[in-house]
Amino acid sequence: MDLGRMSLNSMTVKGVGLADLIRLSKDRDIPAIAPWRDLIADVGLSHAARMIRSSGLRVSSLCRGGMFTHEANGDGQRSMQDNRRAVDEAYEIGAECLVLVCGPVTHRSPRGSLDIIRDAVGELSEYALRAGVRLAIEPLHPMLAANRSALCTVRQATDILASIDSPVTGICIDVYHVWWDPEAIEAIPDLADAIFGFHVSDWTLPINGELESRGMMGDGCIDLRGWADAVYGAGYGGFAEVEVLSAHWWSMPPEVVVDTAVERFLAI
Amino acid sequence: MDLGRMSLNSMTVKGVGLADLIRLSKDRDIPAIAPWRDLIADVGLSHAARMIRSSGLRVSSLCRGGMFTHEANGDGQRSMQDNRRAVDEAYEIGAECLVLVCGPVTHRSPRGSLDIIRDAVGELSEYALRAGVRLAIEPLHPMLAANRSALCTVRQATDILASIDSPVTGICIDVYHVWWDPEAIEAIPDLADAIFGFHVSDWTLPINGELESRGMMGDGCIDLRGWADAVYGAGYGGFAEVEVLSAHWWSMPPEVVVDTAVERFLAI
Repeated sequence: MDLGRMSLNSMTVKGVGLADLIRLSKDRDIPAIAPWRDLIADVGLSHAARMIRSSGLRVSSLCRGGMFTHEANGDGQRSMQDNRRAVDEAYEIGAECLVLVCGPVTHRSPRGSLDIIRDAVGELSEYALRAGVRLAIEPLHPMLAANRSALCTVRQATDILASIDSPVTGICIDVYHVWWDPEAIEAIPDLADAIFGFHVSDWTLPINGELESRGMMGDGCIDLRGWADAVYGAGYGGFAEVEVLSAHWWSMPPEVVVDTAVERFLAI
Repeated sequence: MDLGRMSLNSMTVKGVGLADLIRLSKDRDIPAIAPWRDLIADVGLSHAARMIRSSGLRVSSLCRGGMFTHEANGDGQRSMQDNRRAVDEAYEIGAECLVLVCGPVTHRSPRGSLDIIRDAVGELSEYALRAGVRLAIEPLHPMLAANRSALCTVRQATDILASIDSPVTGICIDVYHVWWDPEAIEAIPDLADAIFGFHVSDWTLPINGELESRGMMGDGCIDLRGWADAVYGAGYGGFAEVEVLSAHWWSMPPEVVVDTAVERFLAI
Protein backbone atom coordinates (compact mmCIF):
# COMPACT_ATOMS: atom_id res chain seq x y z
CA MET A 1 0.00 0.00 0.00
CA ASP A 2 1.16 3.49 -0.85
CA LEU A 3 1.49 6.00 2.00
CA GLY A 4 -0.57 8.38 -0.14
CA ARG A 5 -3.59 6.24 0.68
CA MET A 6 -3.15 6.21 4.46
CA SER A 7 -5.34 8.00 6.95
CA LEU A 8 -4.80 8.03 10.72
CA ASN A 9 -7.96 7.42 12.73
CA SER A 10 -7.80 9.13 16.11
CA MET A 11 -8.90 5.95 17.93
CA THR A 12 -5.55 4.39 17.02
CA VAL A 13 -3.92 6.95 19.32
CA LYS A 14 -6.74 7.31 21.84
CA GLY A 15 -6.27 10.23 24.19
CA VAL A 16 -4.37 12.37 21.67
CA GLY A 17 -5.95 15.74 20.80
CA LEU A 18 -6.54 17.23 17.36
CA ALA A 19 -3.29 19.22 17.31
CA ASP A 20 -1.24 16.13 18.07
CA LEU A 21 -3.22 14.00 15.61
CA ILE A 22 -2.33 16.55 12.92
CA ARG A 23 1.32 16.69 14.01
CA LEU A 24 1.72 12.90 14.19
CA SER A 25 0.36 12.63 10.65
CA LYS A 26 2.22 15.53 9.03
CA ASP A 27 5.56 14.47 10.56
CA ARG A 28 5.26 11.15 8.71
CA ASP A 29 3.73 12.44 5.44
CA ILE A 30 0.45 10.68 6.20
CA PRO A 31 -1.92 12.70 3.99
CA ALA A 32 -5.18 12.30 5.92
CA ILE A 33 -6.75 12.01 9.35
CA ALA A 34 -10.05 10.69 10.68
CA PRO A 35 -10.96 12.38 13.96
CA TRP A 36 -13.65 11.16 16.31
CA ARG A 37 -16.08 13.88 17.33
CA ASP A 38 -14.66 14.30 20.84
CA LEU A 39 -11.45 15.75 19.33
CA ILE A 40 -13.51 18.33 17.44
CA ALA A 41 -15.60 19.18 20.49
CA ASP A 42 -12.51 19.64 22.66
CA VAL A 43 -11.20 22.57 20.58
CA GLY A 44 -14.54 23.80 19.21
CA LEU A 45 -15.89 23.25 15.72
CA SER A 46 -14.79 26.44 13.98
CA HIS A 47 -11.30 26.30 15.47
CA ALA A 48 -11.01 22.62 14.53
CA ALA A 49 -12.03 23.43 10.97
CA ARG A 50 -9.36 26.15 10.77
CA MET A 51 -6.67 23.87 12.23
CA ILE A 52 -7.46 21.17 9.69
CA ARG A 53 -7.62 23.57 6.74
CA SER A 54 -4.30 25.17 7.59
CA SER A 55 -2.68 21.74 8.06
CA GLY A 56 -3.30 20.82 4.45
CA LEU A 57 -4.43 17.36 5.56
CA ARG A 58 -7.46 15.64 4.11
CA VAL A 59 -10.19 14.24 6.38
CA SER A 60 -11.17 10.75 5.30
CA SER A 61 -14.10 10.63 7.71
CA LEU A 62 -15.67 12.00 10.84
CA CYS A 63 -16.42 9.30 13.42
CA ARG A 64 -19.25 8.95 14.20
CA GLY A 65 -23.01 9.40 14.00
CA GLY A 66 -25.68 6.74 14.29
CA MET A 67 -27.01 4.90 17.36
CA PHE A 68 -30.45 5.09 15.77
CA THR A 69 -31.95 2.24 17.74
CA HIS A 70 -32.06 4.51 20.79
CA GLU A 71 -35.17 5.77 19.02
CA ALA A 72 -36.93 2.59 20.00
CA ASN A 73 -36.25 3.52 23.59
CA GLY A 74 -38.06 6.82 23.25
CA ASP A 75 -34.84 8.70 22.53
CA GLY A 76 -35.46 9.31 18.84
CA GLN A 77 -35.71 13.07 18.84
CA ARG A 78 -32.36 13.59 20.54
CA SER A 79 -30.68 10.93 18.42
CA MET A 80 -31.74 12.57 15.15
CA GLN A 81 -30.81 16.07 16.36
CA ASP A 82 -27.37 14.87 17.33
CA ASN A 83 -26.97 13.13 13.98
CA ARG A 84 -27.85 16.33 12.13
CA ARG A 85 -25.20 18.10 14.21
CA ALA A 86 -22.71 15.41 13.21
CA VAL A 87 -23.55 16.03 9.55
CA ASP A 88 -22.93 19.74 10.05
CA GLU A 89 -19.62 19.02 11.74
CA ALA A 90 -18.56 16.73 8.89
CA TYR A 91 -19.35 19.55 6.46
CA GLU A 92 -17.38 22.14 8.46
CA ILE A 93 -14.22 20.07 8.67
CA GLY A 94 -14.47 18.92 5.05
CA ALA A 95 -14.80 15.23 5.91
CA GLU A 96 -15.27 12.92 2.93
CA CYS A 97 -17.96 11.12 4.87
CA LEU A 98 -19.66 10.77 8.23
CA VAL A 99 -19.34 7.22 9.54
CA LEU A 100 -22.53 5.82 11.06
CA VAL A 101 -22.43 3.17 13.78
CA CYS A 102 -26.07 2.33 13.58
CA GLY A 103 -26.96 1.22 17.09
CA PRO A 104 -27.38 -2.06 18.98
CA VAL A 105 -30.11 -4.66 18.83
CA THR A 106 -33.09 -3.33 20.74
CA HIS A 107 -36.19 -5.11 22.04
CA ARG A 108 -34.36 -8.46 21.54
CA SER A 109 -35.10 -8.20 17.82
CA PRO A 110 -32.25 -8.14 15.28
CA ARG A 111 -34.70 -7.79 12.37
CA GLY A 112 -36.75 -5.07 14.06
CA SER A 113 -33.56 -3.17 14.85
CA LEU A 114 -32.44 -3.30 11.22
CA ASP A 115 -35.83 -1.90 10.19
CA ILE A 116 -35.41 1.02 12.59
CA ILE A 117 -31.90 1.62 11.25
CA ARG A 118 -33.07 1.57 7.62
CA ASP A 119 -35.77 4.16 8.31
CA ALA A 120 -33.47 6.41 10.34
CA VAL A 121 -30.63 6.32 7.80
CA GLY A 122 -33.18 7.16 5.14
CA GLU A 123 -34.35 10.18 7.11
CA LEU A 124 -30.81 11.38 7.82
CA SER A 125 -29.87 10.88 4.15
CA GLU A 126 -32.31 13.63 3.16
CA TYR A 127 -30.64 16.07 5.55
CA ALA A 128 -27.18 14.96 4.40
CA LEU A 129 -28.12 15.45 0.74
CA ARG A 130 -29.10 19.05 1.43
CA ALA A 131 -25.87 19.55 3.41
CA GLY A 132 -23.71 17.94 0.72
CA VAL A 133 -22.26 15.42 3.16
CA ARG A 134 -21.82 11.72 2.45
CA LEU A 135 -22.95 9.12 4.99
CA ALA A 136 -21.17 5.76 5.36
CA ILE A 137 -23.04 3.04 7.22
CA GLU A 138 -20.57 0.63 8.81
CA PRO A 139 -21.35 -3.04 9.47
CA LEU A 140 -19.79 -3.95 12.81
CA HIS A 141 -18.66 -7.36 14.01
CA PRO A 142 -21.52 -9.51 15.41
CA MET A 143 -19.59 -9.46 18.69
CA LEU A 144 -20.84 -5.86 18.98
CA ALA A 145 -24.50 -6.49 18.11
CA ALA A 146 -25.68 -6.10 21.70
CA ASN A 147 -23.99 -2.79 22.45
CA ARG A 148 -23.07 -1.03 19.20
CA SER A 149 -24.59 -2.26 15.97
CA ALA A 150 -27.40 -4.55 14.87
CA LEU A 151 -25.97 -3.93 11.40
CA CYS A 152 -23.37 -6.70 11.18
CA THR A 153 -22.89 -7.77 7.58
CA VAL A 154 -22.16 -6.22 4.20
CA ARG A 155 -25.29 -7.87 2.86
CA GLN A 156 -27.47 -6.18 5.50
CA ALA A 157 -25.84 -2.86 4.59
CA THR A 158 -26.38 -3.29 0.87
CA ASP A 159 -30.01 -4.18 1.51
CA ILE A 160 -30.41 -0.88 3.38
CA LEU A 161 -28.56 1.08 0.68
CA ALA A 162 -30.78 -0.44 -2.02
CA SER A 163 -33.86 0.48 -0.03
CA ILE A 164 -32.75 4.10 0.55
CA ASP A 165 -31.16 4.65 -2.87
CA SER A 166 -29.53 7.98 -2.00
CA PRO A 167 -26.44 9.27 -3.82
CA VAL A 168 -24.97 10.50 -0.53
CA THR A 169 -25.30 7.22 1.35
CA GLY A 170 -22.80 4.40 1.03
CA ILE A 171 -20.88 1.85 3.07
CA CYS A 172 -17.76 1.87 5.19
CA ILE A 173 -15.85 -1.41 4.94
CA ASP A 174 -13.84 -2.14 8.08
CA VAL A 175 -12.03 -5.41 7.59
CA TYR A 176 -11.97 -6.16 11.33
CA HIS A 177 -15.73 -6.39 11.35
CA VAL A 178 -16.40 -8.36 8.17
CA TRP A 179 -13.28 -10.45 7.44
CA TRP A 180 -14.92 -13.69 8.65
CA ASP A 181 -17.79 -13.49 6.13
CA PRO A 182 -16.97 -14.86 2.68
CA GLU A 183 -19.99 -13.06 1.22
CA ALA A 184 -18.49 -9.73 2.28
CA ILE A 185 -15.42 -9.74 0.07
CA GLU A 186 -17.40 -11.41 -2.70
CA ALA A 187 -19.83 -8.45 -2.66
CA ILE A 188 -17.12 -5.81 -3.11
CA PRO A 189 -16.91 -5.83 -6.94
CA ASP A 190 -20.60 -4.92 -7.16
CA LEU A 191 -20.35 -2.15 -4.58
CA ALA A 192 -17.93 0.03 -6.53
CA ASP A 193 -19.07 3.64 -6.08
CA ALA A 194 -20.99 2.84 -2.88
CA ILE A 195 -17.77 2.32 -0.90
CA PHE A 196 -17.23 5.57 0.99
CA GLY A 197 -14.68 4.33 3.51
CA PHE A 198 -12.14 1.55 4.07
CA HIS A 199 -10.68 0.77 7.50
CA VAL A 200 -7.78 -1.55 8.27
CA SER A 201 -6.49 -3.28 11.38
CA ASP A 202 -6.17 -7.02 12.10
CA TRP A 203 -8.00 -9.79 13.96
CA THR A 204 -6.06 -11.06 16.96
CA LEU A 205 -6.95 -13.18 19.99
CA PRO A 206 -7.77 -13.27 22.84
CA ILE A 207 -10.70 -10.89 22.99
CA ASN A 208 -10.29 -9.08 26.28
CA GLY A 209 -12.86 -6.34 25.96
CA GLU A 210 -14.93 -6.48 22.79
CA LEU A 211 -14.08 -2.84 21.98
CA GLU A 212 -10.32 -2.80 22.58
CA SER A 213 -8.81 -6.05 21.31
CA ARG A 214 -7.90 -5.23 17.72
CA GLY A 215 -4.53 -6.07 16.29
CA MET A 216 -2.08 -4.00 14.24
CA MET A 217 -2.01 -4.90 10.56
CA GLY A 218 0.12 -7.99 10.06
CA ASP A 219 -0.36 -9.38 13.58
CA GLY A 220 -3.56 -11.29 12.80
CA CYS A 221 -5.28 -13.55 10.32
CA ILE A 222 -7.01 -11.12 7.94
CA ASP A 223 -6.06 -11.26 4.26
CA LEU A 224 -5.36 -7.51 4.16
CA ARG A 225 -3.73 -7.65 0.75
CA GLY A 226 -6.76 -9.48 -0.64
CA TRP A 227 -9.11 -6.90 0.85
CA ALA A 228 -7.07 -3.95 -0.45
CA ASP A 229 -6.97 -5.53 -3.91
CA ALA A 230 -10.74 -6.07 -3.82
CA VAL A 231 -11.65 -2.59 -2.59
CA TYR A 232 -9.29 -0.62 -4.81
CA GLY A 233 -9.93 -3.02 -7.69
CA ALA A 234 -13.63 -2.18 -7.41
CA GLY A 235 -12.80 1.44 -8.14
CA TYR A 236 -12.63 2.89 -4.63
CA GLY A 237 -10.33 5.89 -4.77
CA GLY A 238 -10.30 6.99 -1.15
CA PHE A 239 -8.07 6.53 1.85
CA ALA A 240 -7.49 3.44 3.95
CA GLU A 241 -7.97 4.45 7.56
CA VAL A 242 -5.83 2.80 10.19
CA GLU A 243 -8.24 2.27 13.08
CA VAL A 244 -6.73 0.05 15.76
CA LEU A 245 -8.82 0.08 18.95
CA SER A 246 -6.43 -1.75 21.24
CA ALA A 247 -5.68 -1.60 24.93
CA HIS A 248 -2.22 -2.92 24.06
CA TRP A 249 -1.38 -0.16 21.58
CA TRP A 250 -3.06 2.51 23.70
CA SER A 251 -0.48 1.70 26.39
CA MET A 252 2.39 2.58 24.02
CA PRO A 253 3.72 6.08 23.15
CA PRO A 254 1.69 7.52 20.23
CA GLU A 255 4.86 8.05 18.17
CA VAL A 256 5.70 4.35 18.41
CA VAL A 257 2.15 3.37 17.49
CA VAL A 258 2.06 5.61 14.41
CA ASP A 259 5.57 4.58 13.29
CA THR A 260 4.47 0.95 13.54
CA ALA A 261 1.20 1.67 11.73
CA VAL A 262 3.07 3.31 8.83
CA GLU A 263 5.53 0.41 8.57
CA ARG A 264 2.73 -2.19 8.62
CA PHE A 265 0.59 -0.17 6.21
CA LEU A 266 3.39 -0.07 3.63
CA ALA A 267 3.88 -3.84 4.05
CA ILE A 268 0.28 -4.74 3.14
CA MET B 1 -39.80 -24.66 29.09
CA ASP B 2 -40.57 -28.04 30.54
CA LEU B 3 -37.83 -29.75 32.57
CA GLY B 4 -38.46 -32.84 30.43
CA ARG B 5 -36.69 -31.04 27.60
CA MET B 6 -33.57 -30.05 29.52
CA SER B 7 -30.13 -31.52 29.02
CA LEU B 8 -27.05 -30.59 31.03
CA ASN B 9 -23.95 -30.00 28.91
CA SER B 10 -20.80 -30.83 30.84
CA MET B 11 -19.16 -27.53 29.88
CA THR B 12 -21.67 -25.73 32.11
CA VAL B 13 -19.99 -27.44 35.07
CA LYS B 14 -16.46 -27.61 33.69
CA GLY B 15 -14.17 -29.81 35.76
CA VAL B 16 -16.93 -32.18 36.87
CA GLY B 17 -16.48 -35.84 35.91
CA LEU B 18 -19.04 -38.17 34.34
CA ALA B 19 -20.25 -39.63 37.65
CA ASP B 20 -20.95 -36.18 39.06
CA LEU B 21 -22.56 -34.98 35.82
CA ILE B 22 -24.95 -37.93 36.09
CA ARG B 23 -25.59 -37.29 39.80
CA LEU B 24 -26.16 -33.53 39.34
CA SER B 25 -28.73 -34.29 36.64
CA LYS B 26 -30.56 -37.18 38.29
CA ASP B 27 -30.84 -35.33 41.62
CA ARG B 28 -32.85 -32.62 39.82
CA ASP B 29 -34.85 -34.82 37.44
CA ILE B 30 -33.00 -33.44 34.45
CA PRO B 31 -33.59 -36.23 31.93
CA ALA B 32 -30.48 -35.87 29.73
CA ILE B 33 -26.81 -35.02 29.68
CA ALA B 34 -24.35 -33.93 27.00
CA PRO B 35 -20.81 -34.93 27.93
CA TRP B 36 -17.70 -33.61 26.22
CA ARG B 37 -15.32 -36.34 25.13
CA ASP B 38 -12.82 -35.74 27.91
CA LEU B 39 -15.36 -37.01 30.46
CA ILE B 40 -15.72 -40.23 28.47
CA ALA B 41 -11.98 -40.66 28.06
CA ASP B 42 -11.37 -40.13 31.77
CA VAL B 43 -13.35 -43.25 32.77
CA GLY B 44 -12.90 -45.25 29.57
CA LEU B 45 -15.46 -45.70 26.81
CA SER B 46 -17.03 -49.04 27.80
CA HIS B 47 -17.28 -48.05 31.47
CA ALA B 48 -18.78 -44.68 30.50
CA ALA B 49 -21.37 -46.42 28.33
CA ARG B 50 -22.34 -48.71 31.25
CA MET B 51 -22.57 -45.78 33.68
CA ILE B 52 -24.86 -43.89 31.34
CA ARG B 53 -27.06 -46.91 30.53
CA SER B 54 -27.54 -47.76 34.19
CA SER B 55 -28.34 -44.11 35.01
CA GLY B 56 -31.38 -44.13 32.75
CA LEU B 57 -30.40 -40.70 31.42
CA ARG B 58 -30.59 -39.84 27.75
CA VAL B 59 -27.57 -38.36 25.95
CA SER B 60 -28.60 -35.40 23.83
CA SER B 61 -25.19 -35.16 22.19
CA LEU B 62 -21.53 -35.99 22.41
CA CYS B 63 -19.33 -32.88 22.15
CA ARG B 64 -17.40 -32.80 19.92
CA GLY B 65 -15.83 -33.83 16.61
CA GLY B 66 -14.78 -31.59 13.75
CA MET B 67 -11.74 -29.31 13.40
CA PHE B 68 -11.58 -30.36 9.77
CA THR B 69 -9.57 -27.38 8.57
CA HIS B 70 -6.52 -28.87 10.22
CA GLU B 71 -6.53 -30.94 7.05
CA ALA B 72 -5.35 -27.92 5.18
CA ASN B 73 -2.33 -27.90 7.44
CA GLY B 74 -1.35 -31.42 6.43
CA ASP B 75 -3.10 -32.94 9.43
CA GLY B 76 -6.02 -34.48 7.53
CA GLN B 77 -5.35 -38.12 8.17
CA ARG B 78 -5.24 -37.74 11.95
CA SER B 79 -8.25 -35.42 11.96
CA MET B 80 -10.46 -37.90 10.09
CA GLN B 81 -9.30 -40.85 12.21
CA ASP B 82 -10.16 -38.96 15.37
CA ASN B 83 -13.55 -38.01 13.96
CA ARG B 84 -14.33 -41.65 13.18
CA ARG B 85 -13.42 -42.46 16.78
CA ALA B 86 -15.80 -39.75 17.95
CA VAL B 87 -18.57 -41.31 15.84
CA ASP B 88 -17.85 -44.69 17.46
CA GLU B 89 -17.95 -43.12 20.93
CA ALA B 90 -21.27 -41.42 20.16
CA TYR B 91 -22.65 -44.81 19.13
CA GLU B 92 -21.37 -46.54 22.28
CA ILE B 93 -22.91 -44.03 24.69
CA GLY B 94 -26.16 -43.79 22.72
CA ALA B 95 -25.79 -40.10 21.92
CA GLU B 96 -28.56 -38.64 19.75
CA CYS B 97 -25.90 -36.85 17.74
CA LEU B 98 -22.22 -36.00 17.54
CA VAL B 99 -21.74 -32.22 17.53
CA LEU B 100 -19.17 -30.99 15.00
CA VAL B 101 -17.20 -27.80 15.58
CA CYS B 102 -15.87 -27.58 12.10
CA GLY B 103 -12.54 -25.82 12.47
CA PRO B 104 -11.17 -22.28 12.10
CA VAL B 105 -10.45 -20.21 9.03
CA THR B 106 -7.27 -21.49 7.48
CA HIS B 107 -4.97 -19.92 4.87
CA ARG B 108 -6.70 -16.55 5.52
CA SER B 109 -9.64 -17.76 3.41
CA PRO B 110 -13.14 -18.00 4.91
CA ARG B 111 -14.55 -19.36 1.63
CA GLY B 112 -11.76 -21.88 1.14
CA SER B 113 -12.21 -23.06 4.72
CA LEU B 114 -15.94 -23.63 4.20
CA ASP B 115 -15.12 -25.69 1.11
CA ILE B 116 -12.77 -27.89 3.14
CA ILE B 117 -15.43 -28.27 5.83
CA ARG B 118 -18.12 -29.23 3.30
CA ASP B 119 -15.93 -31.96 1.81
CA ALA B 120 -14.85 -33.32 5.19
CA VAL B 121 -18.36 -33.40 6.64
CA GLY B 122 -19.46 -35.21 3.50
CA GLU B 123 -16.74 -37.83 3.96
CA LEU B 124 -17.53 -38.30 7.65
CA SER B 125 -21.26 -38.54 6.87
CA GLU B 126 -20.65 -41.76 4.95
CA TYR B 127 -18.92 -43.29 7.97
CA ALA B 128 -21.64 -42.00 10.31
CA LEU B 129 -24.37 -43.46 8.10
CA ARG B 130 -22.81 -46.92 8.34
CA ALA B 131 -22.43 -46.46 12.12
CA GLY B 132 -25.99 -45.24 12.55
CA VAL B 133 -24.86 -42.01 14.24
CA ARG B 134 -26.22 -38.56 13.48
CA LEU B 135 -23.86 -35.61 12.93
CA ALA B 136 -24.81 -32.05 13.87
CA ILE B 137 -22.74 -29.26 12.34
CA GLU B 138 -22.79 -26.23 14.61
CA PRO B 139 -22.38 -22.66 13.35
CA LEU B 140 -20.25 -20.78 15.87
CA HIS B 141 -20.20 -17.04 16.56
CA PRO B 142 -18.01 -15.09 14.12
CA MET B 143 -15.95 -14.07 17.17
CA LEU B 144 -14.62 -17.67 17.01
CA ALA B 145 -13.86 -17.80 13.29
CA ALA B 146 -10.10 -17.51 13.79
CA ASN B 147 -9.71 -20.27 16.36
CA ARG B 148 -12.73 -22.59 16.26
CA SER B 149 -15.09 -22.38 13.32
CA ALA B 150 -15.13 -20.84 9.85
CA LEU B 151 -18.75 -22.03 9.85
CA CYS B 152 -20.50 -19.04 11.41
CA THR B 153 -24.06 -18.77 10.13
CA VAL B 154 -27.14 -20.93 9.75
CA ARG B 155 -27.17 -20.12 6.05
CA GLN B 156 -23.62 -21.44 5.60
CA ALA B 157 -24.67 -24.60 7.44
CA THR B 158 -27.79 -25.15 5.34
CA ASP B 159 -25.71 -24.66 2.18
CA ILE B 160 -23.41 -27.47 3.37
CA LEU B 161 -26.33 -29.70 4.34
CA ALA B 162 -27.94 -29.21 0.93
CA SER B 163 -24.68 -30.07 -0.77
CA ILE B 164 -24.14 -33.25 1.30
CA ASP B 165 -27.78 -34.34 1.44
CA SER B 166 -27.26 -37.12 3.98
CA PRO B 167 -30.06 -38.34 6.28
CA VAL B 168 -27.64 -38.54 9.22
CA THR B 169 -26.30 -34.99 8.92
CA GLY B 170 -28.11 -31.97 10.35
CA ILE B 171 -27.53 -28.76 12.29
CA CYS B 172 -27.06 -27.84 15.91
CA ILE B 173 -28.61 -24.47 16.74
CA ASP B 174 -26.83 -22.75 19.62
CA VAL B 175 -28.55 -19.44 20.26
CA TYR B 176 -25.39 -17.85 21.67
CA HIS B 177 -23.72 -18.18 18.29
CA VAL B 178 -26.51 -17.12 15.94
CA TRP B 179 -28.84 -14.81 17.92
CA TRP B 180 -27.51 -11.65 16.22
CA ASP B 181 -28.43 -12.85 12.70
CA PRO B 182 -32.06 -12.22 11.72
CA GLU B 183 -31.72 -14.73 8.87
CA ALA B 184 -30.97 -17.48 11.39
CA ILE B 185 -34.30 -17.51 13.20
CA GLU B 186 -36.11 -16.84 9.93
CA ALA B 187 -34.56 -20.03 8.50
CA ILE B 188 -35.78 -22.28 11.32
CA PRO B 189 -39.25 -23.14 9.92
CA ASP B 190 -37.66 -24.59 6.79
CA LEU B 191 -35.10 -26.62 8.71
CA ALA B 192 -37.59 -28.81 10.57
CA ASP B 193 -36.16 -32.34 10.57
CA ALA B 194 -32.61 -31.12 9.99
CA ILE B 195 -32.36 -29.68 13.52
CA PHE B 196 -30.46 -32.30 15.53
CA GLY B 197 -29.55 -30.15 18.53
CA PHE B 198 -30.60 -26.97 20.34
CA HIS B 199 -28.32 -25.21 22.84
CA VAL B 200 -29.27 -22.38 25.18
CA SER B 201 -27.34 -19.80 27.20
CA ASP B 202 -27.40 -16.00 26.89
CA TRP B 203 -25.34 -13.18 25.41
CA THR B 204 -23.75 -10.97 28.04
CA LEU B 205 -20.98 -8.37 28.00
CA PRO B 206 -18.11 -7.73 28.42
CA ILE B 207 -16.32 -10.40 26.44
CA ASN B 208 -13.33 -11.33 28.55
CA GLY B 209 -12.06 -14.40 26.78
CA GLU B 210 -13.97 -15.31 23.64
CA LEU B 211 -14.54 -18.88 24.91
CA GLU B 212 -15.67 -18.22 28.48
CA SER B 213 -17.93 -15.18 28.55
CA ARG B 214 -21.40 -16.68 28.08
CA GLY B 215 -24.29 -15.72 30.28
CA MET B 216 -26.88 -17.82 32.08
CA MET B 217 -30.31 -17.80 30.44
CA GLY B 218 -32.14 -14.62 31.41
CA ASP B 219 -29.03 -12.54 32.09
CA GLY B 220 -28.56 -11.35 28.52
CA CYS B 221 -30.31 -10.01 25.44
CA ILE B 222 -31.29 -13.14 23.53
CA ASP B 223 -34.99 -13.72 22.83
CA LEU B 224 -34.85 -17.25 24.29
CA ARG B 225 -38.61 -17.67 24.29
CA GLY B 226 -38.75 -16.68 20.63
CA TRP B 227 -36.01 -19.15 19.76
CA ALA B 228 -37.65 -21.99 21.71
CA ASP B 229 -40.97 -21.26 20.02
CA ALA B 230 -39.29 -21.27 16.61
CA VAL B 231 -37.28 -24.47 17.11
CA TYR B 232 -40.03 -26.53 18.75
CA GLY B 233 -42.62 -24.98 16.46
CA ALA B 234 -40.62 -26.27 13.50
CA GLY B 235 -41.10 -29.80 14.76
CA TYR B 236 -37.87 -30.36 16.67
CA GLY B 237 -38.56 -32.92 19.35
CA GLY B 238 -35.22 -33.16 21.10
CA PHE B 239 -33.64 -31.68 24.19
CA ALA B 240 -32.49 -28.13 24.85
CA GLU B 241 -28.94 -28.35 26.12
CA VAL B 242 -27.82 -25.83 28.70
CA GLU B 243 -24.27 -25.01 27.63
CA VAL B 244 -22.89 -22.01 29.53
CA LEU B 245 -19.15 -21.62 29.00
CA SER B 246 -18.45 -18.98 31.61
CA ALA B 247 -15.48 -18.17 33.83
CA HIS B 248 -18.00 -16.60 36.22
CA TRP B 249 -20.16 -19.70 36.59
CA TRP B 250 -17.15 -22.02 36.59
CA SER B 251 -16.05 -20.25 39.77
CA MET B 252 -19.27 -21.23 41.54
CA PRO B 253 -20.12 -24.61 43.16
CA PRO B 254 -21.59 -26.97 40.51
CA GLU B 255 -24.74 -27.49 42.61
CA VAL B 256 -25.45 -23.74 42.58
CA VAL B 257 -24.82 -23.54 38.85
CA VAL B 258 -27.18 -26.42 38.05
CA ASP B 259 -29.88 -25.18 40.44
CA THR B 260 -29.70 -21.79 38.74
CA ALA B 261 -29.74 -23.38 35.28
CA VAL B 262 -32.89 -25.34 36.14
CA GLU B 263 -34.63 -22.26 37.52
CA ARG B 264 -33.73 -20.17 34.48
CA PHE B 265 -34.63 -22.98 32.08
CA LEU B 266 -38.12 -23.26 33.52
CA ALA B 267 -38.52 -19.46 33.25
CA ILE B 268 -37.85 -19.32 29.49
